[in-house]
Amino acid sequence: MKTVLTGDRPTGPLHLGHYVGSLQNRVKLQKDHRQFILIADAQALTDNFDNTEKIRTNILEVALDYLAVGIDPKQSTIFVQSQVPELTELSFYFMNLVTVSRLERNPTVKEEIKQRNFERDIPVGFFTYPISQAADIAAFKAHLVPVGEDQLPMIEQTNEIVRRVNRIADRAVLMEAEAMVSTVGRLPGIDGKAKMSKSLGNTINLGASADEISRAVKKMYTDPLHLAVNDPGRVEGNVVFSYLDVFHPDTALVAELKAHYQRGGLADSLVKKHLEEVLQDFLRPIREHRALLAQDLNYVRDMLRIGTQTARAVAATTVDEVKDVFGLGRF
Amino acid sequence: MKTVLTGDRPTGPLHLGHYVGSLQNRVKLQKDHRQFILIADAQALTDNFDNTEKIRTNILEVALDYLAVGIDPKQSTIFVQSQVPELTELSFYFMNLVTVSRLERNPTVKEEIKQRNFERDIPVGFFTYPISQAADIAAFKAHLVPVGEDQLPMIEQTNEIVRRVNRIADRAVLMEAEAMVSTVGRLPGIDGKAKMSKSLGNTINLGASADEISRAVKKMYTDPLHLAVNDPGRVEGNVVFSYLDVFHPDTALVAELKAHYQRGGLADSLVKKHLEEVLQDFLRPIREHRALLAQDLNYVRDMLRIGTQTARAVAATTVDEVKDVFGLGRF
Repeated sequence: MKTVLTGDRPTGPLHLGHYVGSLQNRVKLQKDHRQFILIADAQALTDNFDNTEKIRTNILEVALDYLAVGIDPKQSTIFVQSQVPELTELSFYFMNLVTVSRLERNPTVKEEIKQRNFERDIPVGFFTYPISQAADIAAFKAHLVPVGEDQLPMIEQTNEIVRRVNRIADRAVLMEAEAMVSTVGRLPGIDGKAKMSKSLGNTINLGASADEISRAVKKMYTDPLHLAVNDPGRVEGNVVFSYLDVFHPDTALVAELKAHYQRGGLADSLVKKHLEEVLQDFLRPIREHRALLAQDLNYVRDMLRIGTQTARAVAATTVDEVKDVFGLGRF
Repeated sequence: MKTVLTGDRPTGPLHLGHYVGSLQNRVKLQKDHRQFILIADAQALTDNFDNTEKIRTNILEVALDYLAVGIDPKQSTIFVQSQVPELTELSFYFMNLVTVSRLERNPTVKEEIKQRNFERDIPVGFFTYPISQAADIAAFKAHLVPVGEDQLPMIEQTNEIVRRVNRIADRAVLMEAEAMVSTVGRLPGIDGKAKMSKSLGNTINLGASADEISRAVKKMYTDPLHLAVNDPGRVEGNVVFSYLDVFHPDTALVAELKAHYQRGGLADSLVKKHLEEVLQDFLRPIREHRALLAQDLNYVRDMLRIGTQTARAVAATTVDEVKDVFGLGRF
């Protein structure tokens, strides 16, 4: 049984983009993998020090989303990063194995520093987060780490550290991880932007109400040149069709709708009606499940505590092994 | 009762330089301070990854030296840094509060990077060690930290972090530390170099045998121009006189010897005889005490374990307080 490590930064409730990009995969993976799902509150702090309350409250929101979509705490270990201090310990020792110039060359870090306008005022915790991420992965001896293309350098960095430790130990103490690059295309935002992102306000949350879903579909980006119903319309870049492709179970019907839309004579409102139906049907059980769980937050808290205990035990074993490689603790 | 944090990197047994520069002060401080003494094995690793065995074995050597000179585990808490994982956790969160450019400006780090010829290949763990040191100091809410002049920027860095945490918390969660700069001059090496240092091979260890002491005094640097006994000799820069100043209880006799040496007519061998007597008398009880303790290393190990437990409990309280400031753990 292979081990998977995955997770999310608790900076907001999860949305359809998360479902398509990772959650549905986790629901599948948990059946025949040992899956650890990390709620990365400590990592989220590295660039949210001005808003710790946001992170605090979203831990439970994210946990609710996990459970609502069918992640099963009996099959997956869901845990809170900041409650596993062993990860900071591993991170601390890994810092001796990476040079400053190696971190500076990490393309993901470079890009994110640019995006966040940090320039020279990069917090050290942000600069070193590839090492912390390597510790997260190595602590659980993960075989597989689901990532986007842009995260591949992080896996490379992890494996460099893993090989370094194993070389010092002269045996395979840690496990090299394999990136599991998603084959599913990214779900666009409802505004047509490439990425659904809460900061862009173009998301549909997994806990969205019927009304919110309805409004989101109404606002959805279609073909801006499809002015009259009888005009031929474009389906490429038309968010409504992108979503139908992903969520409509009847692919033949979707193909028919596409052809009709391209010919002309199919109103946006009609296509959107199809999509709304599908999204309402898809999100209703998730929302209802989520609402039920939200009535018993102590159950969710207990689930996180138990998961965190399990995760700590695993990470502690790895930390002991790594410290033993460096001769720490034997005196 | 004020709290003192102090310690040593276990990279070798301690020597007379350590005694004069810090150990004798600790023996005094423990009487009316709450003193934590850290054996910094984790920090020593940052630039000793190629020689972990050295660090491992020297933990007990350093502990033996402490006990032998009169540091009393009932009055001082002696602990092993790597066995207090709370310190890495605090360090991890502190990393969010310091920028990369701030670290680059730290004069102590700059100087040490130069000394170690790291250039661009600085291990991240070495680059960030001022943050780790800040965590050590803050974890114990130390009021006083004995340091050399060259370490003052480290205390400044610590207090910047402390103030930042307190500002976020809007109350004094952590304690600003005060540098306690030694007024005692540095003991020169037996070769006349300014500093006694094991890497220069110019030390007299606290556990030195009678023979080793005798040989060290014989080799000791005097006045190279004092060729014939009747020549006038110089006492400035003459290591034998520097040591007599520090160790001889009879200051009048030392003044007389100096005057005679300066006039001419006093042989180096005679001055050295005085010094050897004094050093043998000074080091004999330390050596004997040390040898006795070395026969019961399990006692020393237990002492370290108990000290480490005490230190962990204190550090854990601080970590909980700091995590609470950041809202971590409450969900």
